[in-house]
Amino acid sequence: MRRHNLAAVIGHVHRSGPTSRAELTQTLGLNRSTIGALVDELSARGLVAERSDRARRTPGRPSYLVTVRTDTVAVLAVVLGVDTVTVATVAPGGEILAEDHVALTTDEDRSFDRVLTTIARSCKKLAVALPHGTMVTGMGVAVPGIVRRQDGLVHFAPNLGWRDVPLGARLRTRMRSRMGLDVPVACRNDAGLGALAEHARGIGAGVANLVYLHAEVGVGGGIVVDGALLEGAAGYGGEVGHMRVNPDGAPCRCGSRGCWETEVGEDALVALAGRRPGGRAVVEEVLRAVVAGEPSATRAVNTVARWLGIGVANLINCFNPDMVVLGGLFADVMEHAGPSVIAQMRTGLVTPAHLDVALVTPTLGRHSVLLGAAEVALEPVLSDPACLPVQDIASLR
Amino acid sequence: MRRHNLAAVIGHVHRSGPTSRAELTQTLGLNRSTIGALVDELSARGLVAERSDRARRTPGRPSYLVTVRTDTVAVLAVVLGVDTVTVATVAPGGEILAEDHVALTTDEDRSFDRVLTTIARSCKKLAVALPHGTMVTGMGVAVPGIVRRQDGLVHFAPNLGWRDVPLGARLRTRMRSRMGLDVPVACRNDAGLGALAEHARGIGAGVANLVYLHAEVGVGGGIVVDGALLEGAAGYGGEVGHMRVNPDGAPCRCGSRGCWETEVGEDALVALAGRRPGGRAVVEEVLRAVVAGEPSATRAVNTVARWLGIGVANLINCFNPDMVVLGGLFADVMEHAGPSVIAQMRTGLVTPAHLDVALVTPTLGRHSVLLGAAEVALEPVLSDPACLPVQDIASLR
Repeated sequence: MRRHNLAAVIGHVHRSGPTSRAELTQTLGLNRSTIGALVDELSARGLVAERSDRARRTPGRPSYLVTVRTDTVAVLAVVLGVDTVTVATVAPGGEILAEDHVALTTDEDRSFDRVLTTIARSCKKLAVALPHGTMVTGMGVAVPGIVRRQDGLVHFAPNLGWRDVPLGARLRTRMRSRMGLDVPVACRNDAGLGALAEHARGIGAGVANLVYLHAEVGVGGGIVVDGALLEGAAGYGGEVGHMRVNPDGAPCRCGSRGCWETEVGEDALVALAGRRPGGRAVVEEVLRAVVAGEPSATRAVNTVARWLGIGVANLINCFNPDMVVLGGLFADVMEHAGPSVIAQMRTGLVTPAHLDVALVTPTLGRHSVLLGAAEVALEPVLSDPACLPVQDIASLR
Repeated sequence: MRRHNLAAVIGHVHRSGPTSRAELTQTLGLNRSTIGALVDELSARGLVAERSDRARRTPGRPSYLVTVRTDTVAVLAVVLGVDTVTVATVAPGGEILAEDHVALTTDEDRSFDRVLTTIARSCKKLAVALPHGTMVTGMGVAVPGIVRRQDGLVHFAPNLGWRDVPLGARLRTRMRSRMGLDVPVACRNDAGLGALAEHARGIGAGVANLVYLHAEVGVGGGIVVDGALLEGAAGYGGEVGHMRVNPDGAPCRCGSRGCWETEVGEDALVALAGRRPGGRAVVEEVLRAVVAGEPSATRAVNTVARWLGIGVANLINCFNPDMVVLGGLFADVMEHAGPSVIAQMRTGLVTPAHLDVALVTPTLGRHSVLLGAAEVALEPVLSDPACLPVQDIASLR
């Protein structure tokens, strides 16, 4: 019970920012003296501090705000991209303390063993730079592929060329041998983590049911059902990019054909607009051509918009979300052909009542996946603040 | 806390059947004296009884089993079908006490007001026949359509010809005025209730993540995510029949085209086999023709099998279930063309790890939806046994 209440207080301050004891009392439905004792315990464990609320300048005695400390606990958040590995140290409250980026330019750079070395090196660099006394309590890794929740086995990450590699286990060993850091390593699909972050502290804060979609070459999906990320039996849930929407469509990297991402991904837009694939730069060229009124580019974005509307309607019928978050290329398509998306979506909804859904773009920008990785890494400490593992980063110096 | 524990004990006995105090102690992780006190309280409230376990014939002192009583509390469970209204009285434990069927033969029979009258009349008949002293505590209604959870507004029930009718509110009023019974009326989509029942006491008992599919003319879906039925923002979740899988496909009753149910429903099978629609009888004729080796019937069932595999793969990619339950026509297709379904499904799965999924048929047979309706009606009593609403059916006699 006490553990549950400690978690409720630190969880609230972690997600919502500095909060007065009075607000905590009201929001969490606990009495004043209980909140006082919980804040005192979190404070003694170094997780929160109280500071006076000068901004409010209320008359009478000063008001204090409970706020997370960012100098006692931190986690390592890793985002594996196709071109870049990003590593960051993140404190409770979602504050990014420091970031490191390493470019992956060759296939050799993307090989499993090389990526492990790259991650471990960046982690050590950032951990050593943490304020003296900061404990690193966990690690979260975002993977552009299909990951087994239990142990971080990556079944398939097409853009890295990985199949069945034991990422979680090998990272943990590597961190232990390289920097004497033995902490849980949570590996998850990147889009699922984007959904988690937008739900924790972005556009989806407080929304119980949301579908988060992020498109680049592939389409990633993360789905929140009744407040929790849908993971399914083994953590493979949310793979909406391979929803087959066009059985006569183009072959997909996954071995099937007519998957949603073959119709709505960057490659589809670029090819429909008569360009050769060339990453984000060519996508932006196509979008500029749309603005300039080039007919083939306009047709291309409208075709992609149609398929986007079809897929979004399918997902709304399945999940009945309060909100659909459209990121990456999908945000661009909404900007340039939003009415086509909505018209197509409307014909596919089984009830007009579904039109209550909010179609929005993510607000955490390029940090959503990184903050999601931090969220899963922080989870053990936030759910049981009284059981912090004890380590001493100072020994690495 | 006590309320939570009372609910845990009655919930376990309700789902798992007669259980000894020792098993309750072990399963629920509570100590012996706590279990004793909880059983005594449930017993005093008339919800459980203890009987000696003669079947076990263990030596030494007799063992007693805690079992639900079926003579103190009952709910009304209603299934609205296209041709029939079924009403039953159901006791905790899922025991069907009595059933009443009323055929709907004309469109007039299916009109909203007539159906209300039919339900109320059957309910009164069954309630009066309950053992003296049995309290009716709730009502659950299964609807072949899209229902708002909050108040039982039916947005769309194509086979009944209903649009935006306030079923929940009107039924409650009707029951109150007709038989002085003022109880909560929970209206839900029928396939969702089928999923709930198979999860509570059928093939899916103890399975955390399952997709339940039932096909007749339409395809209904009910999805259990992490132990709970996916309802979404307003209760419209699980409408997988209108997942658009073939954008160039046939028009659907919903106004769209190429919805999954236009490719895999009874009408598709019958038309592909060169027959005219004629309900279940013609479907069975086609299935007999498959067994007899008629080429057009064989091609028809294989085509439907292919589309079934495509849709099931989409759902497995989305939900990563432990189990997919295939009922109605889908059970027939598995029986007659299972390998085609599985071959097609396999090409659509994003990871071979998804092949761990169990493809099964429902075990509660024609009662699954009825028992699901009873489940939602019983929920208030089972989640808070100490707060039984007090009514006296005896006054109706």
